[in-house]
Amino acid sequence: MKIITFGEIMLRLKTPGVERLFQSHSLEATFGGGEANVAVSLANYGMQASFVTALPANAIGDACIRELRGLGVDTSLILRQGERMGIYFLEAGANALPSKVIYDRAHASIATAGPEAFDWPAIFEGAGWLHITGITPAISEAAMQNSLACVKAAKETGLTVSCDLNYRKNLWKYGKKASEVMRELVKFVDVTVANEEDIQKALEIEADVHVESGELDTEAYKKLSNKVLECYPSMRMIAITLRESQSADVNGWAACLNDRNNFYLSKRYQITDIVDRVGGGDSFSGGLIYGLNHFSHPREALEFAVAASCLKHSVNGDFNRVTLEDVKKLMGGDASGRVQR
Amino acid sequence: MKIITFGEIMLRLKTPGVERLFQSHSLEATFGGGEANVAVSLANYGMQASFVTALPANAIGDACIRELRGLGVDTSLILRQGERMGIYFLEAGANALPSKVIYDRAHASIATAGPEAFDWPAIFEGAGWLHITGITPAISEAAMQNSLACVKAAKETGLTVSCDLNYRKNLWKYGKKASEVMRELVKFVDVTVANEEDIQKALEIEADVHVESGELDTEAYKKLSNKVLECYPSMRMIAITLRESQSADVNGWAACLNDRNNFYLSKRYQITDIVDRVGGGDSFSGGLIYGLNHFSHPREALEFAVAASCLKHSVNGDFNRVTLEDVKKLMGGDASGRVQR
Amino acid sequence: MKIITFGEIMLRLKTPGVERLFQSHSLEATFGGGEANVAVSLANYGMQASFVTALPANAIGDACIRELRGLGVDTSLILRQGERMGIYFLEAGANALPSKVIYDRAHASIATAGPEAFDWPAIFEGAGWLHITGITPAISEAAMQNSLACVKAAKETGLTVSCDLNYRKNLWKYGKKASEVMRELVKFVDVTVANEEDIQKALEIEADVHVESGELDTEAYKKLSNKVLECYPSMRMIAITLRESQSADVNGWAACLNDRNNFYLSKRYQITDIVDRVGGGDSFSGGLIYGLNHFSHPREALEFAVAASCLKHSVNGDFNRVTLEDVKKLMGGDASGRVQR
Amino acid sequence: MKIITFGEIMLRLKTPGVERLFQSHSLEATFGGGEANVAVSLANYGMQASFVTALPANAIGDACIRELRGLGVDTSLILRQGERMGIYFLEAGANALPSKVIYDRAHASIATAGPEAFDWPAIFEGAGWLHITGITPAISEAAMQNSLACVKAAKETGLTVSCDLNYRKNLWKYGKKASEVMRELVKFVDVTVANEEDIQKALEIEADVHVESGELDTEAYKKLSNKVLECYPSMRMIAITLRESQSADVNGWAACLNDRNNFYLSKRYQITDIVDRVGGGDSFSGGLIYGLNHFSHPREALEFAVAASCLKHSVNGDFNRVTLEDVKKLMGGDASGRVQR
Amino acid sequence: MKIITFGEIMLRLKTPGVERLFQSHSLEATFGGGEANVAVSLANYGMQASFVTALPANAIGDACIRELRGLGVDTSLILRQGERMGIYFLEAGANALPSKVIYDRAHASIATAGPEAFDWPAIFEGAGWLHITGITPAISEAAMQNSLACVKAAKETGLTVSCDLNYRKNLWKYGKKASEVMRELVKFVDVTVANEEDIQKALEIEADVHVESGELDTEAYKKLSNKVLECYPSMRMIAITLRESQSADVNGWAACLNDRNNFYLSKRYQITDIVDRVGGGDSFSGGLIYGLNHFSHPREALEFAVAASCLKHSVNGDFNRVTLEDVKKLMGGDASGRVQR
Amino acid sequence: MKIITFGEIMLRLKTPGVERLFQSHSLEATFGGGEANVAVSLANYGMQASFVTALPANAIGDACIRELRGLGVDTSLILRQGERMGIYFLEAGANALPSKVIYDRAHASIATAGPEAFDWPAIFEGAGWLHITGITPAISEAAMQNSLACVKAAKETGLTVSCDLNYRKNLWKYGKKASEVMRELVKFVDVTVANEEDIQKALEIEADVHVESGELDTEAYKKLSNKVLECYPSMRMIAITLRESQSADVNGWAACLNDRNNFYLSKRYQITDIVDRVGGGDSFSGGLIYGLNHFSHPREALEFAVAASCLKHSVNGDFNRVTLEDVKKLMGGDASGRVQR
Repeated sequence: MKIITFGEIMLRLKTPGVERLFQSHSLEATFGGGEANVAVSLANYGMQASFVTALPANAIGDACIRELRGLGVDTSLILRQGERMGIYFLEAGANALPSKVIYDRAHASIATAGPEAFDWPAIFEGAGWLHITGITPAISEAAMQNSLACVKAAKETGLTVSCDLNYRKNLWKYGKKASEVMRELVKFVDVTVANEEDIQKALEIEADVHVESGELDTEAYKKLSNKVLECYPSMRMIAITLRESQSADVNGWAACLNDRNNFYLSKRYQITDIVDRVGGGDSFSGGLIYGLNHFSHPREALEFAVAASCLKHSVNGDFNRVTLEDVKKLMGGDASGRVQR
Repeated sequence: MKIITFGEIMLRLKTPGVERLFQSHSLEATFGGGEANVAVSLANYGMQASFVTALPANAIGDACIRELRGLGVDTSLILRQGERMGIYFLEAGANALPSKVIYDRAHASIATAGPEAFDWPAIFEGAGWLHITGITPAISEAAMQNSLACVKAAKETGLTVSCDLNYRKNLWKYGKKASEVMRELVKFVDVTVANEEDIQKALEIEADVHVESGELDTEAYKKLSNKVLECYPSMRMIAITLRESQSADVNGWAACLNDRNNFYLSKRYQITDIVDRVGGGDSFSGGLIYGLNHFSHPREALEFAVAASCLKHSVNGDFNRVTLEDVKKLMGGDASGRVQR
Repeated sequence: MKIITFGEIMLRLKTPGVERLFQSHSLEATFGGGEANVAVSLANYGMQASFVTALPANAIGDACIRELRGLGVDTSLILRQGERMGIYFLEAGANALPSKVIYDRAHASIATAGPEAFDWPAIFEGAGWLHITGITPAISEAAMQNSLACVKAAKETGLTVSCDLNYRKNLWKYGKKASEVMRELVKFVDVTVANEEDIQKALEIEADVHVESGELDTEAYKKLSNKVLECYPSMRMIAITLRESQSADVNGWAACLNDRNNFYLSKRYQITDIVDRVGGGDSFSGGLIYGLNHFSHPREALEFAVAASCLKHSVNGDFNRVTLEDVKKLMGGDASGRVQR
Repeated sequence: MKIITFGEIMLRLKTPGVERLFQSHSLEATFGGGEANVAVSLANYGMQASFVTALPANAIGDACIRELRGLGVDTSLILRQGERMGIYFLEAGANALPSKVIYDRAHASIATAGPEAFDWPAIFEGAGWLHITGITPAISEAAMQNSLACVKAAKETGLTVSCDLNYRKNLWKYGKKASEVMRELVKFVDVTVANEEDIQKALEIEADVHVESGELDTEAYKKLSNKVLECYPSMRMIAITLRESQSADVNGWAACLNDRNNFYLSKRYQITDIVDRVGGGDSFSGGLIYGLNHFSHPREALEFAVAASCLKHSVNGDFNRVTLEDVKKLMGGDASGRVQR
Repeated sequence: MKIITFGEIMLRLKTPGVERLFQSHSLEATFGGGEANVAVSLANYGMQASFVTALPANAIGDACIRELRGLGVDTSLILRQGERMGIYFLEAGANALPSKVIYDRAHASIATAGPEAFDWPAIFEGAGWLHITGITPAISEAAMQNSLACVKAAKETGLTVSCDLNYRKNLWKYGKKASEVMRELVKFVDVTVANEEDIQKALEIEADVHVESGELDTEAYKKLSNKVLECYPSMRMIAITLRESQSADVNGWAACLNDRNNFYLSKRYQITDIVDRVGGGDSFSGGLIYGLNHFSHPREALEFAVAASCLKHSVNGDFNRVTLEDVKKLMGGDASGRVQR
Repeated sequence: MKIITFGEIMLRLKTPGVERLFQSHSLEATFGGGEANVAVSLANYGMQASFVTALPANAIGDACIRELRGLGVDTSLILRQGERMGIYFLEAGANALPSKVIYDRAHASIATAGPEAFDWPAIFEGAGWLHITGITPAISEAAMQNSLACVKAAKETGLTVSCDLNYRKNLWKYGKKASEVMRELVKFVDVTVANEEDIQKALEIEADVHVESGELDTEAYKKLSNKVLECYPSMRMIAITLRESQSADVNGWAACLNDRNNFYLSKRYQITDIVDRVGGGDSFSGGLIYGLNHFSHPREALEFAVAASCLKHSVNGDFNRVTLEDVKKLMGGDASGRVQR
């Protein structure tokens, strides 16, 4: 199964360790972005994954391609055009001090690429799955149109379409509300991934759950997922990630999956020493796509996805660099962290 | 309101990460010291803060001034004289292994500066508040005399005087006991900050509280603060910080404030992944001074101070580099540490 | 009391911080290995410790000797021969993601050194104690024969012999099962250190305890230790380390000691922010040997050993770089981690 | 004498040491830009320098202000508006491999700030000198208009105006040729700084000198400077920097000054181990402004400027962090580099 | 044209900057090896290059593949077998102090892979060129046999075969003299690359040239190349690299090419600030193969190869990370190292 | 031959690479000092060397001892007393910008140790050589008296005494002129090492040589050395180091030796890429002592010393970490810097 993911990848400039921005004069420079992170997860588990984006034809774009290609992602469909690569600055928090992201992603190649840039039928040749997130349509008018064209073409070509709603309040600045776009886009989606805020903001479906409290009410999530599935009849399933944010270092992590037949609630992991939670949701989507394609039962796919994304919190950088064996071991119940030698 | 703080700033040489001293051949070189840390906190929140000290006229003193000035502290009152800058070496602990400080601060410019060095009336021109700590008079005979002259002059000029008792058992080596000096100095203080050990050692007022246990007895602190206020009739209020040291990484953190009208006990924070607790008390003093000058109710000032100093534990270095918004957000109840983007 | 330890020391190449292997292009290069770690612990506490091994006559072997000598270990008995130094790569985990060790230790000087290389009577001159582990006989046929020769000679010379059974499933590749060798070797041992898995795998004595669960059943350990002492009548005592692996960062840590007269269970430490647990067991052995030679009661020796190895978890690198005062302070009950200044 | 400099400051992201971009995952993050660099030089020599620009109201803009303020530059006139800060990536070369700059400076706050943003009369209050470069008008239509308004207002207010022509072929993308703008702007300039390429490209005055050859023809520079002074009758003097680029590490460095009375050729320095030549020209301008304000003879001002900028090649970063004493020592003939202790 | 290169790639562990081994506790960890370096050069210039080797099936082998794949090298033909990856330690010298290499490459996967491991006809499918060096047959008996089988199969399949003689005195330890093997292997080579020492040691053809002197005698090289071509009638051409080692930082660099029709002597480069000269020869081979396939005249191919390898001396790591444009610019005569912006 | 060296060792805090002090927030922390550097050189070449000093009984002193002991120096004679260790800050220069040293060495343990601290007869037991420098008597009155007592006792005990005059203008602040002391001390010296400035300032013997010029006049050095030998009849020989400081990176380096029989002028080395010249003179003294004890002819000793110290310029840190083989290879004429593999 060849998977296409479409969206933005940014230069990620992070302070070393837990430092305030420019506290020292050094920044970690890696790459990351929702859909790229999913592609890396899939390639990492051995699947064929191709990432579609636009990158400027300069040394920074070259480096990004080297990084993705090294990690096994097919980069042959990446366009080289436009004037710049989006950047995000990341300042790592600790305890009650949150990590902070500063976006500098306007005018990026992917934001300015017009509809003529992507030949969707050609791109989808040989592919069986498309993954997109709610970030791409939030970037610019053009990216929004490309996103819609993308999912429509995918659906027409017969691909399974998955989408992480991924609401970002600091995007959506080009004149559309998130819900105006996402409610249209989701009509073409088979597998939805979201958290409660995404559903509220992107689909305007009210969630009776309270994020800030740090507590978890399972029943509410069941109802919420049913509501979404009712609204979108062609949607086959929805997974909701359940993050309890106790501090910047300590999170509860779980997810549920509603496939219209059943509502599954995953094992819950208490993560006490978060290394990096950026990309956590993407690692869930990557795990879910892998799981749905490799396990016979949805519960297993869900558990794989939750275990995979639990482990992502131990890895610095957007990309989930754990092995298939790591995930399966945790999924199998061994969370002991004993040294392997 | 312009605030003057008077005391020592040292070159802080810390091992990288959690390393034993000289385990690697690299040291982090920053600056810090009780009163300077308070000045940085205040400038950081947008107040006018001027730090008064003496620094040698060499490249190390220059760098220290650059650092303070960059952080918004007025450095125009700093004297350039004497032979050296004090140094402290810091080895970061973890779990049951404590962080360790080695002082190399004898013979520093601030310790050798005589009474003629500081023209207090000129220094206090335009200022409304003076902050000092019990460290400055502990350094040397000369620094002790300057400290006393400073608080007296401040009081006479009509400034509000705050003092963090800050007892350090490895100082006070020039022939005076802490209590001999501090009991005199405190007579000129309006706002006192202390912990239970400071009160015992600097004021020789017995505290019925047990630090080593890691447990907290609120009632005892109420009594203790009353005792202090009784001894010092001109003192307007005393704040006591309540640290429960469970390990080098895990501390409970709270404070109480007795303003003669009421005894306030703040919210208690459980800090589970301490990044750096040096300067924690100073960030409380800074927060308290800010709070008393910006909130109408002492309780708010206390809660601001506790939230500010709670966040300091997430910041490497003596200085509290969190924003006013960070503090207000935590003070408002959001300790979730959720990524801000 | 001069102590001899015999075994392998490897070049330890660790990823910086919590990174996957080669995530960045930097590796921390230090040295470590079971018996060397014990020698460092002992020298660190002020005892005379001499490490016996074989190292190649090149700049890497030189550096290793410099490191050991600097830490106070006598290196004058180290042979310089053979073609290479063993290497182990260490990737640090976090949360549910385990640390991982990749060994590249085949063909090391210590593995290829023949029986003629070591003149045991000369080596043991002036010494009163020998420490060895189950790793050395696991490396190669030659190392196994040297190990047996070593303990026999030590016993004949009248040294006290201690052995950490230290079972490593990825070693023992030269054609012998661990138990074939270790059941012979242990006959010459006075003081045994082990965990439950070691006893099962190295001595094939069944333990009714379940490691993976993360829970601790004291009674079972008493029975287990009795079983071992029954099997090996000349063994004077056995200490069993009790690690509850809750995650890569969080471990419970305790130990018990059975000296045929009594069964002692140590204080239990909850370590919540592990810096490095490699070498933890060795720091226990080092602490135990120190303790048995410096305290009048076995319980004290046990508590010293557990406190010492508890503190090791706060130190990066194989070697336990804490001071005698650090250990005694923790042993005395102060686990508060309060800054020392 | 208070000096105003107006222009852009960028986030400078440089590869560590001599590395290709993203060869490792780390970037040095500092700040720099033509006019800011001049302000830093002047503040560094003890003059009053104020830098005027627009920066976004985020943590990156804050850090930039902290850096400038720390170095003694007045930042009180900096506007906080717009969406982003310009960035430049710098890859350091060696030998025949050139250093390379990738600009990502479009859409920066300074490029989008309209004419209403700057109240020139208020800005120039108390100032005696304005410095600008040919980079600012090259950024955008708006920045060009602001540049012209700036120099006109400065001239009207009676300030001395200096300008480094600083031609950059990768800018000037908004629809104007450099010469269209610069020939107008230069009419208001008293002191011009340039190299031969700048004069050709910005003023379209043909230079009979050949840069690429690495050789120097003094007579041609005399003629060239005369030509410029003839074209611009209100220009008081022009300085031309003479760089012989022998390799990325080895440059000859000198300058000449034509003040209509005399043509001065400076001492020539052979710089054999360039640490960082970015900002070299700016350090010359800074030195020249200092020199013209502190020395009685133009020759001295020129020699000071050349010595200052020679030393800049030994300093990493855009800013010239050498002392006044360093410059005067070199100007006095001591280029021996002997250790000072 | 698809190029196959066959040989070893090692983990390269280099001291940071110019440090003695283990002076600090950090090592740069990259990958490199003669034939891999050539493959990287070719992929870097946009050619199809596939590297054939054997790597262990562990995380270190994985990382190596990620690195090569990221740089555009086809890694699909790499075998995963054997027990370890070869390592070389590199200590960088300066001035009269040489860089030093310590090999730890015995028992590597490529050294132990038997003849059955490589299916040469399958490997060569679609390929037009094979490159090998004299290092591979020097590693082990098995590697030697594979090398011979490889060149024979390549020749039979009609590929052009190039070989860098690359004599290493510390290899060839399995019982054969270099010349015994290389004189046989070279019979199948079309394009030979060598330096004077290689020819002497690998082919036992006496060179009347003196390396240690640091001086260059062109005529002697002409004679020497003619001698080689006489001995090996099927060899189409030989290129000899001419390094004048003046110090660890300063080298003259040039090469000559004898294609039986003409003897070409390249431009000579004086490299004064060497960043890393390891891999210099390989970058020449890579440049030559590129040149012979893209330029119509051998002289151009030679000049491209010399310019490419001249630039390699400015790049840290075994791999030549300069662009095609960099090489063409230098080849075109611009060695000025002027900043590109 | 066991050699004693007596003097100060300091904590050396150097900026990373070529950085201005505190340009980044990191400092390299190593140790160094004239007489310690000589001891390290000697131990490094395999001689028995014992360093005598006083160090504070804290973790910094411990680390210093670990470093020296690791490098093979006997540290058993080091006293642990006093309040602090001297520190020197080092800012590395380049080109015309000099390296700068800031001393913070007042009040160090070695400066405050009184005459009762050192039991010279016990210290000299078994030793054959004493080395001291002109730095030790320059530190303090007490250190001066200890220095004189030391050389007198050494002479009485029959040791050969060597002394590097090492004039430091920023020391000698306790009330004596250098010459007052050194002219007395030198009376007990057999082997003197100096440069022209040392001789002028420490012995007040006028040298007709001009340092600043960067040129070398051999004849003048011959005369100068004769003058010294005439003044001090018991001096057996004097070696004068001849440094031509062309820039911070480029130095000529040579030395001459006058043993009353002959005047030897060594080979001259042009060092073009200095890594670290601090400790260069000490490495010469170390080389000379080794040479005089291992070569039959003074010329060889001189050439060994010059080659050794030439190589020191390629090593970061005060200590000369090159091998005996490195020195002998250079002494033998191979300065080519060719990679050794």
